[in-house]
Amino acid sequence: MSRTDLADTYRDYISCLNGQDWAKLDRFVHTDVIHNGRQIGSSGYRDMLERDFDDIPDLQFNVQILIADASHVASRIAFNCTPKERFLGLDVNGRKVSFSENVIYEFRGGKISQVWSIIDTAAIEAQL
Amino acid sequence: MSRTDLADTYRDYISCLNGQDWAKLDRFVHTDVIHNGRQIGSSGYRDMLERDFDDIPDLQFNVQILIADASHVASRIAFNCTPKERFLGLDVNGRKVSFSENVIYEFRGGKISQVWSIIDTAAIEAQL
Repeated sequence: MSRTDLADTYRDYISCLNGQDWAKLDRFVHTDVIHNGRQIGSSGYRDMLERDFDDIPDLQFNVQILIADASHVASRIAFNCTPKERFLGLDVNGRKVSFSENVIYEFRGGKISQVWSIIDTAAIEAQL
Repeated sequence: MSRTDLADTYRDYISCLNGQDWAKLDRFVHTDVIHNGRQIGSSGYRDMLERDFDDIPDLQFNVQILIADASHVASRIAFNCTPKERFLGLDVNGRKVSFSENVIYEFRGGKISQVWSIIDTAAIEAQL
């Protein structure tokens, strides 16, 4: 895929997440997807996202920076949301927090095949 | 700059860091550089890096993934090193730890003008 196509696909993927349109998720995520070194597969990926929205009812992904080449996308995503209880080992307990994620995706056949995600937990900790 | 030029410049920048060739750093870093939202300038940037090498004598930057467009570079950097004492608020105290950084750079006039860096501190914590 061209860089532009991959950037467009990625934006559609983010819309899919923000709309919690799980029926469409398989269009974007490879069956054998690996997330942070664990091969969770597309069903595990969906479970992870559904759990995120259960834990954080007002979760929205706001792409701030997007860089694409022919096979990879990197993005910086901003979050401004209210985790209900514990989140990433921190007792957020219904407080509104702002933080970022720097994440890199490898695409294969137009679908996400591998994800390397790091969330800025120190930023959350500083707000508690 | 083209994507290829920017990727090449970035690789030269990483070689400069690994060689602790501070006299060359200004070739790569903009005078007004902003790091994680703080305008530290090129001298503050150099101080930060020199401090990192003081705190972690065996520090080396290993680029695992590199994505470039015309104005930005994103990379995933692997570290396998031995911080002498406290590092990112964690009591590492001379243990060898492996962790990654996902980092995005904005370039202006061929030099790094802004950096958004997130280090996987949870990975370090899990090794202590």
